Amino acid sequence: MRKLFYNIGRIWGVESVPLAYKSGNEMSVVDAVDNAWLLAEDGLIADWGAMASDLPAADQSLDCTGMELLPGLVDSHTHVVFAATRTTEWELRLKGASYEEIAAAGGGILNSAAKLRVMDEQRLYDESLERVLRMIAHGTTTLEIKSGYGLSLESEMKMLRIARRIGHTVPATVKTTFLGAHAVPPEFKGNREGYVEHVIDTMLPAVAAENLADHVDVFCDRGFFTPDETMRILAAADKLGLPAKIHANELGLTGGVQAAVKAGAWSADHLEHTGEEEVLVLRQSQTMPVGLPGTSYFLGIPYTPGRMLIDAGLPFAIATDFNPGSSPLCSLQMAWSLACTQMRLLPSEGLNAITLNAARALRLEQICGSVARGKRADFWLTRTRDAMNSVPYYFGVNHASQVFILGNLQ
Amino acid sequence: MRKLFYNIGRIWGVESVPLAYKSGNEMSVVDAVDNAWLLAEDGLIADWGAMASDLPAADQSLDCTGMELLPGLVDSHTHVVFAATRTTEWELRLKGASYEEIAAAGGGILNSAAKLRVMDEQRLYDESLERVLRMIAHGTTTLEIKSGYGLSLESEMKMLRIARRIGHTVPATVKTTFLGAHAVPPEFKGNREGYVEHVIDTMLPAVAAENLADHVDVFCDRGFFTPDETMRILAAADKLGLPAKIHANELGLTGGVQAAVKAGAWSADHLEHTGEEEVLVLRQSQTMPVGLPGTSYFLGIPYTPGRMLIDAGLPFAIATDFNPGSSPLCSLQMAWSLACTQMRLLPSEGLNAITLNAARALRLEQICGSVARGKRADFWLTRTRDAMNSVPYYFGVNHASQVFILGNLQ
Repeated sequence: MRKLFYNIGRIWGVESVPLAYKSGNEMSVVDAVDNAWLLAEDGLIADWGAMASDLPAADQSLDCTGMELLPGLVDSHTHVVFAATRTTEWELRLKGASYEEIAAAGGGILNSAAKLRVMDEQRLYDESLERVLRMIAHGTTTLEIKSGYGLSLESEMKMLRIARRIGHTVPATVKTTFLGAHAVPPEFKGNREGYVEHVIDTMLPAVAAENLADHVDVFCDRGFFTPDETMRILAAADKLGLPAKIHANELGLTGGVQAAVKAGAWSADHLEHTGEEEVLVLRQSQTMPVGLPGTSYFLGIPYTPGRMLIDAGLPFAIATDFNPGSSPLCSLQMAWSLACTQMRLLPSEGLNAITLNAARALRLEQICGSVARGKRADFWLTRTRDAMNSVPYYFGVNHASQVFILGNLQ
Repeated sequence: MRKLFYNIGRIWGVESVPLAYKSGNEMSVVDAVDNAWLLAEDGLIADWGAMASDLPAADQSLDCTGMELLPGLVDSHTHVVFAATRTTEWELRLKGASYEEIAAAGGGILNSAAKLRVMDEQRLYDESLERVLRMIAHGTTTLEIKSGYGLSLESEMKMLRIARRIGHTVPATVKTTFLGAHAVPPEFKGNREGYVEHVIDTMLPAVAAENLADHVDVFCDRGFFTPDETMRILAAADKLGLPAKIHANELGLTGGVQAAVKAGAWSADHLEHTGEEEVLVLRQSQTMPVGLPGTSYFLGIPYTPGRMLIDAGLPFAIATDFNPGSSPLCSLQMAWSLACTQMRLLPSEGLNAITLNAARALRLEQICGSVARGKRADFWLTRTRDAMNSVPYYFGVNHASQVFILGNLQ
């Protein structure tokens, strides 16, 4: 099946020679074709060109007059399977309580876990699927989903099964991450070592045996898991063939980035606290630094110094961290605006951060993240003119008119 | 014509005894009715009640199962008639230039003015109308539109005519404001006094003669107009029967609030720099303080201390300041989120700030701003549960499923 999209005002993010990712100055490069066509064949991008050239033959044609086209957005860090909004905590926070104070009071992740454990699996699936569909409506065509609100073998498996089921239901690419080490559950209160052993000896093998996770993540931070515990969990995961992603340096300079690099993690996420040593370590690694500006916006904590990382020659990706307590953000368009206005990324750098580099954070850069021949025909059309500059500019709204996954309208 | 909306999950913002506005502790009061109906008659709210009671007879009925209802949002400060996005300035700003530096370099308002003056009136109307329709789609049912990008008699009149024409086209309530004193145009460079006299002697009488404006505004701030010049312009407006609104204290403690109060202004807008003296002065006035969080978000300047104003017992309203250079924000839902997350307003305080108190900033509190008998049947329905808490929580998206103005679906 060949589908031709023609009269496209501009295609943003085309790549003739695909890169694995962009770093430093390359991040402000976004190639575009004006007045263009794009041909999708059997769900993949077959070719594109300017309207001046002869149009290829196709089974279906779609006139895109008045529209611009952007690559499908890639959300490499979400907790979209969750049970309930934590609005009562929000009032506490608005009145000045910190994330750690709320966690210490039994709120935060443990609050989410308590609600998730008791929720019926079907309802949890239905509500999570609804959220994923909303993400897709905002241009997201690839996403990662973490467990971590179960914190028991049974409930973590429940979360991951739901994530897999969502992946089988929607045409978007869905990758799953086992985050058993998100917090110490009440059953192990005061016995973190016992929980670490439980994760390593019981949960990880069970998750691997059912092939429920594509990666393993650890919340390596002050009050959560130490770099040493993190390394042990990730070493066990590695033996099972599961690559690492890490929550690092959200709450301080706590060695999370160093642990990520030592473990060969695909990405180190959060990094609100990043110093010179972290930059040096990242430079000598293949680990993608990922900023989560929704969290900083919502919690009022510092933003990841994305500008500094890019100026230091590093690559940088952005994700939503969509979750019910610290980042209730489903839209990567809004994350893009936050990256520009709050981290001082240029619009072009922001676009690379939510497409190609985000794909790299999931090691999916060969199948998505740009408009390149042979990649998935995942993209969205917008009526917003000069879209690369205007989408993060006119913030707080959905600029996507139509979203296509594998060439099909969603 | 009687229209009955029934099976509404919850109606937020009902008032049995309507207030003119809410201040201090009252701002966290939002009355609600669960499992409710609402009757609109000839465009006005006739009554509401709980589903337990007998339903009134009606010509039309709409089942609102799964929906909650909120009062139509009121945007008391916009510059929605504009010619073009100022994206080139944005790059400058992202690289660190200040608002004043950009203005000094001939950018900012003067840049917008240059583009507006040459734009064809019909195209300006078409594009502005499109923006207003987008605002309505996000729940706004009452809005104010300022001139101020013309800065010549002819172009200011052009802007105001377009604003009036939009008001006659859409069913939303549209009020217009003459803001000739937004900046000194190139023709009067180095001769601000000459321009002030031109505004007073030529522009104001012409605007009043054609009944093009409902209020007069002045940008009273450092580098723009002094409190003395402001008072002179507003005194002249007062003689023509035109009430005052003021841009004040965006760039410093420059006496704008004091000028607003002395002039009996209906509102003093911006107030990013507000000290104890301003609070004292506002307390002894009928002037509504209006915060514009989109501007602070986009420019990276301080947020108006809304929390402090409310804690001092004052009323407080929020508007978008929708404009092409410093606040490209059409959605009051997003402004509500900013008010909560960045100014530390509670969700209830934020809702009053974008409904009743915003209506008061336009002296329209008797016709809109809450669900009260005899007010306009302007409201919106959302599928988002616990809407008052969840709309500002899940930010960056449009929660409005259906918007009604005078009881009619938009």
